[in-house]
Parts: sequence; C-alpha cells; structure tokens
Amino acid sequence: MNGFMILYLLGLVFLIQSGCLLLPVSVGLFYGEEEWKVYALVSAVSFIIGLLLAFRKPKKNVFYAKEGFLTVALSWIVLSLCGAVPFRLTGEIPHYIDAVFETASGFTTTGASILTNVEALSQTSLFWRSFTHWIGGMGVLVFLLAVVPLAGGHTMQLMRAESPGPSVGKFVPKVRQTAFILYSIYFAMTILEIVLLLAGGMPWFDSICTAFGTAGTGGFSVKNASIGFYQSNYLQAVVTVFMILFAVNFSVYYLLLSKRFRQALKNEELLCFLGIIAVAVLCITFNIKDEFYGGDFYDAFHHSAFSVASIISTTGYGTADFAKWPQLSQYILFVLMFVGACAGSTGGGLKVSRIVLLFKSSVREVLTILHPRSVRAVKLDGKRVDSAIIKNTASLFVISIIVYVFSVFIVSLDGFDMATSLTAVAATMNNIGPGLSLVGPTGNYAAFSGVSKVVLIFDMLAGRLEYFPMIVLFSPSLWKDGFFAMRKSLQSK
Amino acid sequence: MNGFMILYLLGLVFLIQSGCLLLPVSVGLFYGEEEWKVYALVSAVSFIIGLLLAFRKPKKNVFYAKEGFLTVALSWIVLSLCGAVPFRLTGEIPHYIDAVFETASGFTTTGASILTNVEALSQTSLFWRSFTHWIGGMGVLVFLLAVVPLAGGHTMQLMRAESPGPSVGKFVPKVRQTAFILYSIYFAMTILEIVLLLAGGMPWFDSICTAFGTAGTGGFSVKNASIGFYQSNYLQAVVTVFMILFAVNFSVYYLLLSKRFRQALKNEELLCFLGIIAVAVLCITFNIKDEFYGGDFYDAFHHSAFSVASIISTTGYGTADFAKWPQLSQYILFVLMFVGACAGSTGGGLKVSRIVLLFKSSVREVLTILHPRSVRAVKLDGKRVDSAIIKNTASLFVISIIVYVFSVFIVSLDGFDMATSLTAVAATMNNIGPGLSLVGPTGNYAAFSGVSKVVLIFDMLAGRLEYFPMIVLFSPSLWKDGFFAMRKSLQSK
Repeated sequence: MNGFMILYLLGLVFLIQSGCLLLPVSVGLFYGEEEWKVYALVSAVSFIIGLLLAFRKPKKNVFYAKEGFLTVALSWIVLSLCGAVPFRLTGEIPHYIDAVFETASGFTTTGASILTNVEALSQTSLFWRSFTHWIGGMGVLVFLLAVVPLAGGHTMQLMRAESPGPSVGKFVPKVRQTAFILYSIYFAMTILEIVLLLAGGMPWFDSICTAFGTAGTGGFSVKNASIGFYQSNYLQAVVTVFMILFAVNFSVYYLLLSKRFRQALKNEELLCFLGIIAVAVLCITFNIKDEFYGGDFYDAFHHSAFSVASIISTTGYGTADFAKWPQLSQYILFVLMFVGACAGSTGGGLKVSRIVLLFKSSVREVLTILHPRSVRAVKLDGKRVDSAIIKNTASLFVISIIVYVFSVFIVSLDGFDMATSLTAVAATMNNIGPGLSLVGPTGNYAAFSGVSKVVLIFDMLAGRLEYFPMIVLFSPSLWKDGFFAMRKSLQSK
Repeated sequence: MNGFMILYLLGLVFLIQSGCLLLPVSVGLFYGEEEWKVYALVSAVSFIIGLLLAFRKPKKNVFYAKEGFLTVALSWIVLSLCGAVPFRLTGEIPHYIDAVFETASGFTTTGASILTNVEALSQTSLFWRSFTHWIGGMGVLVFLLAVVPLAGGHTMQLMRAESPGPSVGKFVPKVRQTAFILYSIYFAMTILEIVLLLAGGMPWFDSICTAFGTAGTGGFSVKNASIGFYQSNYLQAVVTVFMILFAVNFSVYYLLLSKRFRQALKNEELLCFLGIIAVAVLCITFNIKDEFYGGDFYDAFHHSAFSVASIISTTGYGTADFAKWPQLSQYILFVLMFVGACAGSTGGGLKVSRIVLLFKSSVREVLTILHPRSVRAVKLDGKRVDSAIIKNTASLFVISIIVYVFSVFIVSLDGFDMATSLTAVAATMNNIGPGLSLVGPTGNYAAFSGVSKVVLIFDMLAGRLEYFPMIVLFSPSLWKDGFFAMRKSLQSK
C-alpha cells in the first residue's frame, strides 16, 4: 500500500479544486456580488492544503488497483466536503449537511437538490453549483491525468476507477493522451451547446450553466422551473438532443473523429441505447397524449422525449411533472433510472452495456441447458467478452442491489410513501436527481432526515464511482495494510 | 428430443390428477354436496386422457435436461388448466381465466386469490383448493418419481427441474427412494400439524385445510379473515412455527432422522434463514408496537412473527393487515418477498442459499480487487461451490429481474398505484399470495384485467419452477428440435 502516493494525489486534487474555485470568484467580481470573497478564501485554503500535501512527489510510485480505488474514493469525498464550504459560509445553505448534499449531488452529476428556491442564490453560487457538474462529469482524476505529468504505468488504475463502464478502453496507447482527447471532445461539445442555446435567445449566464448541467448529465438548473422555464420548443429540443449526446460512449466520437464511421455506428451499446429510448418515448407518448396534452401528438412526444432523455442520460432536467403522469409512464421512467447511460459517457446508472452483457449471459445460460455440449462465448461488438468482466458485471449488479435494499431500509425510517423512498434512492444512486412522488420534478430532498441525507450522499458517491471504490473504503484489511505500510515506510527513513 | 417420453409422463400426470380429484369427490359425498359429481366427471375425463397418453411406455427412454424442463413446464400448465375446470363447471368461479388463476395459485403454492368471499364456496371446492397446495408444495413429478417405477438414470433431471434451490442433492443414491423419503417427511409433518391444530379446538375440516396450506407454504384459507378468524394465540403460534418448519430445507430433517445432529444444525442456509427472521421480527415489532398494539410488546411480537414467517416462507396467511403498517415494516416485508425460503423446502422466492451465494461471490470480487494475486473460492457449509452453480445462480437472479420488470410493465397498464403493481408481481412471482396496497392481506386479485391475470399466472408458474423451465418453453430452437425428432421417429416406424 502506497499511502504517500495517495496523499500526493489528494494534494493535486486540492490544487485543482482551488483552481476551479477561481471561476466563481471571477463571476462574483463580474456581477459585483460580495460572495466572491468567500470563494476566494476557500480557494486560498485549498491551495495551501494542496501545496502541503503535494509539495514533494514520493519516490516510490508503485500503484495498484486498490490504491487507485482508494485515491478516487477519497478524492471525491474531499471534493464534496470542501466544495460545500462556500455554500455554508455565504449562508445561502444554512446547514453544512445540506451543503454537502448539494455539492456531492453536483460533483456526482446527480442534480438532486435540497433547495426550495434556487433563484434566491447569488449568481456566484449558482455558477459554482453548475460548474461542479462539469468537473464531475468527466472526472477530476481524468482531468488530473490530462494535465499533470505522472510517471509510471500506474495511471491507468486511476482512470479505470473513475471512469464508468465494465471495461475502460484507451483510445491511444498513452493514458495522458487519452485523457486529453476525452476532455477536448467534452469541451468542444459543451461550447457547441452554449452557442446553440445562445442562438435560441437564452441569456449568456443561463446558457453556460445549462450547458454545464447537460454536459455532466447533472441536472442543476438556474431556474426553479428547470428547463420548463424557457418556453421555447427549440431550446428544449436542443437540451434533449445534447442530453442524449453526452450519454453516448465518448469512444464513438473518437471513432467519428478518426473517420472510422462504420465502426462508430455499429457500436452495439449505442444501438441498444437508441432502441431503448425510441421504445420508451413512444410508449410514454401514447400513454400521456390524450390525458395530458389533449390528443396533441407533437406536444406529448416533445415532453416524453425530453423526460426519457433526461432520465436515461441521468441528467434530471424537467419540462413536465412526470410524477403526475399515468402509472405506466412513471414505471417506465423508474426502470430507465436503473438502466442509465452508455459506458464511457458522463452519465450514470448501471450502463446499457452492462444490461446487454447480463442479458446475453443469461440467454447463454438458457441455451446451455438446451444444448449442454456446445460452448458459447458472450460477444459484444463481435468480440468475445472476457469471463472476468462478466463476473465483475454480475457482482457489481448484485452489490448495487444490496446497496439499494439497505439504503431504502434506512430512508424508509422517515416514513414517506413507498414511491418516494424507492425512487429517492434510485435517483441518487444512479445520479439522476428527481424521482417520483415527493422527490418528483417539482419536489426536492429538503424533507429527509440528516441520517437519510448521509445515506443518500453515500449513494450518490457510490453510484458515480460504480460501487467498488466506496465499498473498498469499508474494508478493514485495507486500513490495516495501509497503516502498517506507512509506519514501515516512516521507520525506514 | 424424446417427445414420446414427454407425452408418456404427461399421461402419468393426468392419472395422478385424476386420483387426486377423488379426494374432493369423497368430501362432497361426506357433506352431501352436489358438487361431487362435477369432480367425479373431471376425474374420469382425466383418467381417460391419462390412459390414452400413458398406454404404452416408449421403448426409447433417453432423457436429457431439456426434456426434464419441458416435461415439468408442460405438466404444471396441464395441472393448472385441468384443475381449474371443476371451479368453472360448478359455477363457483364464473370465468375460466379466474378459475385458472385460482388453480395455478393453488398448485404453485402462491395463495393469491381472485375470490372476494371464500366462505361462499362448497366444502368440496374449498377442500380441492387447499389440496392443490399440498400437491404443489412437494411437487407432482417428485410424487410420480416416488410411486411409479421409471427405469433409467434420467429421472434425476425431472427432480432437478421441479425441486427448488441452486443444487438438488439426493439423500440416498436412488432417486426413487429420495423422493419417497421426502414425501414421507412431508406427510408426517402435515399430520403432526393437523393433530396440534385439533388439540387447540380447530374443527376437523379447517385443521386439514389449514395444514395443507401451511405444508405447501401456500396460504389459501377456508375463512375470509384467514388465520385471523381463529382468535386463539395458540392456534396462530402453531401455524407460525409450522410455516417456518416447512420453509426449512428438508435435508435438515433427513439429517436429524439419521441422527447427524451436528451436521443438521450447522447448515449455513438454515442459520442465515433464522437470522433474517429474527432481525426482521424484531425490527417490525418495535416499529408497530406503539402505533398498532398500544405498546404491548407480546402482541406486537406475535403478529410481527406471524407476518414475517408468512412472507419469508412464502405462505401468505394473515392475522393482521400489514398493508396498513408503517412504511419501514411494509418495506421489510417487501424485501423478504424476494428472499424467500430455504432451498429444498416447499417455499418459493429466490431462496436463502442463493442470496448467500450471491453475497459471498460479490465479497470475493471486492477482495480480489484488494488482493489480486490470492485465489478465493466461494464456500457453503465448508464446501467449495462449483463455479457453474454460481454462474447459474447469477443468471437466475438476472432472469428473475427481467421477468419482474416486464411483468410489472404489463400490470402497470391497469393503472393501479405503484405499490400495488410492484407487490402484486412480487407476491405472485415468489409464490407468496398477498402483497401490499390493493392486493394486501384484506384485498384480492379480482380487479386486474385478463391480460394482467395471464401475466401473473405465468409469473406464478415461472417462480415455482424457478424460471428456466418456463423460459425454455419459449425457445424456438426447442420446438424445431422436438418437431423434427418426432417426425423422424414416426417415419421410422
């Protein structure tokens, strides 16, 4: 266990956080708001802590999977705890636990809010709140990998632990270059969305914040009515399309950029993802058309598409209150909460490729019963999937269900109705934001008890990091190992 | 594919059904009810069909897993369709689909009812309704194996396909003897319960029917108020204890009979099962004590224990309306619905040993991340579990969730609230009976549409037979194989 390397990397995370906080400082100065001082103070303190931790690079840079998971888990906890401080200090969120909830919700791109009136926040804080989505979407350690030269082959462990999906591919042999390409695509697409939103007449500030929320598949909006505030079908359609685009595996974009069009469009996960969206949108459109939109197909389709894109991409923006829709529509959205986006995107959930893998391996099991002597491999995109990945996928699925069952157990103690408890945990664990009933698009998470909020914060982090990193944190053997390794290392100096 | 062997076995199932129907005939004659004639007619017709199919034993008795699954699936469909006829002919259940629902619910030991007034039924029909639980509990093909001499080593396939649990063990080398021992224990325990109920003053007829419902972990009662009708703590406690006893792996009883006490009591699944019950009972007791039982610990404990035993054993008897209990208690019961009983018992659900296996293999996956170079095997009762069984368990888990998700989708079309749709499917799939909300202990399944009822019937059968047999039925390759094999066989004659 290389504890010093972990502390060094945590130091770098503090430095990045400090840099990120300079953006809301400039926003505050631009709008002439007093809040910039608080952000500047927190940025300065982060900078000092970061310098202290990352002052000297440890000589021993051996790095295994467990260090990768641990670094990622601790980084995200640090980001949430530290990024919440400005909200508390400005007094805009009076309780620290609520501020942590809001910040973790931001970084994990959940978008679940405890605020009852978003519009009361200063521009400075609104900007920071949306910006956390953008940082969290692609990942802070992936960013670190893109900008800081880290020697050794260990860096892939960090990327693997932070990036979503059953297997993380490198576009190019070097991790650093891969991380850089990822961030470049991410940056370019965000700019494109901002431009298209501006073209539709959305104000500058709103365009930038909305694009941050879409890009990270987060869902924090600067308006209480979310995207429903902008009564423009064009603007809502732009957001719909970009929610779907940011939920697609970024390797598809890399293939398109490399002009490997056929390979890009044959991506099995992409096709399933689009297929699920098409079926869900049509089912909901016909289910809500008559009762809610007076038989107007286009209107029903518009809101159905927006809601489906918002839930399956795990963004969580709203234009309509789907918590009031018929049972069937609500149920479809509930199921989509667990499906989630594509692997290698900024979205959450189980990921479409995992669903496809689990489905295929179950079909194989049935076929093995019928034809016991034939050997079948599970394939994805025509390639045989390693059995270790299938085992890992099955375990992740089981772990996510265990986490789900225990989380709902604790949240149920608050005594809200079953739809509220079940969907609140589903919406946080899968990094969506709104659920149904009390936590529906027009509701919020303010009413939960402190204990429930802590559980939901854990769920957001566990879901974003795909369970293993946060579970590993609770392993006693890890702490014992780490303690002995650091003591030994200190004694040998 | 050996189609003739399947038809022969189906013929034997018809003959057994015909024999079983003679019991309600005698009950009808005893009570002087006209309904006996209907049962006698159906028995006679079953007998003729059975004779025609099983007239000549096919020479070729080669038999593989797929034939085993197919025979079991078809047998259970035949039992449900044919056993429903008397209910329809006596006019006591006016719609055939409802009669099939009630009969499938009986044979699969679900205990979900479409009847609004059970007490209006004739004694004859009430007896048949409860007796289906007893037949279905241990399995009709296990019964067939116990009484009919079938040559060849293929018989294990039948037992494996019908008996619940991740792996089916034989107590003794011979399948026939194993089946005989199972039915003997089953019979003896049922008699013991009848005696204890009679000792508490329950009428003869009620004692027998209640014992049938407990033994099969079914849950049909002869009273509208279920076991709540018998205002005796002694009687309710007897039922509580026997619900738990019948949900224990029967191999434990065989070990006890063979005086291998230590081995019996060290059974890991049994210990987990009892542990889960203890935790659930205590949580619910404290959750309901003040609000529902005026702070009386014993009273709350009594009803909590009854409900937990009823749900986890997948029986479904009721003494209290737990659909009115606080959210936490309802949620615990909802989770227990999926856990289910022990493997090798008469209960349904996923089975405790599967939960233990899935949990252990997930823990192993986490440990493999922390210590990649150490190899760990998943163990149960100190023995290494074959990786094929773990793979099969994971697949069954995934398939059950796929069936669950699609079933709720269709049932949601009826537009009932989320708790109703979610628990109606959970309660039928796991062969429990009552769910929450509209299908709670005081409700019933009458209000669902025909389509929903068909889906729920499928779920009951799929759950009882543990998914694979019913899924295999929908495999096109199987039907093609079977068709060609039979045509070839007929041509060669």
